[in-house]
Amino acid sequence: MKIVRSGEIAPDIVREPGAKNATVQRLIDTPDGADRFVMSLFELGRDGTSPPHYHDWEHEIYVVSGTLRLELPDRNEVVTLKQGDSVFIARGEQHAFSTAEDESALALTMAPAERPPIRSVFLSEKPYQYDQPAAERR
Amino acid sequence: MKIVRSGEIAPDIVREPGAKNATVQRLIDTPDGADRFVMSLFELGRDGTSPPHYHDWEHEIYVVSGTLRLELPDRNEVVTLKQGDSVFIARGEQHAFSTAEDESALALTMAPAERPPIRSVFLSEKPYQYDQPAAERR
Repeated sequence: MKIVRSGEIAPDIVREPGAKNATVQRLIDTPDGADRFVMSLFELGRDGTSPPHYHDWEHEIYVVSGTLRLELPDRNEVVTLKQGDSVFIARGEQHAFSTAEDESALALTMAPAERPPIRSVFLSEKPYQYDQPAAERR
Repeated sequence: MKIVRSGEIAPDIVREPGAKNATVQRLIDTPDGADRFVMSLFELGRDGTSPPHYHDWEHEIYVVSGTLRLELPDRNEVVTLKQGDSVFIARGEQHAFSTAEDESALALTMAPAERPPIRSVFLSEKPYQYDQPAAERR
């Protein structure tokens, strides 16, 4: 049994290619005994991006608060998600998330604990960017 | 890819022994392609109970709203959970959830898609109970 209080886990800045103003709190992870799936809370600040990418494992996502734009690069579509919406992203599906200049979002994200020994494939060659300390937005 | 809008999935009444005023929305399930873990949204109405039980699979839980009391029967403890708190319940750990007369709660609950061929073991011999239609509480 592990109980994690809201805000107890320090957020890490997401440093993937093309990430912008994104942090992640790893709420329940493999060291806690979660040997099949793990739970993380992603935050996108204003004008934030989780860059276009795909990988050989699935995501299950629940929007906790805010407005989150789900981008589907290979379909050239953007879907606007609101609090309470959820998404299943199958293995191999291209996806990205963003927020507009006046938006932010919190999204609970599930992934399998065991992943194939390959990296995520990112569709951006830009470095990551992080404008605002997470503490300022709390 | 499957996108589920908030409130789109009709809630099922939880009919386990001792359950009271509990419903579940199966947001992402095996027919959607979720072959490793599934995501459900449990709602406990006023004076609600998810009865004491244990099983040979783990839970990962995130409190979306309200006040949720996590009962640990074999430790004789009750932990009060609030919005944003999360819990990892390992395989075999006894657990129950409840709400007081003036409380309700929404909790996102993850479980593995593949479970051993055994049933949950319930610690109550009472039938389930359901006082209020879910629609009245929305």
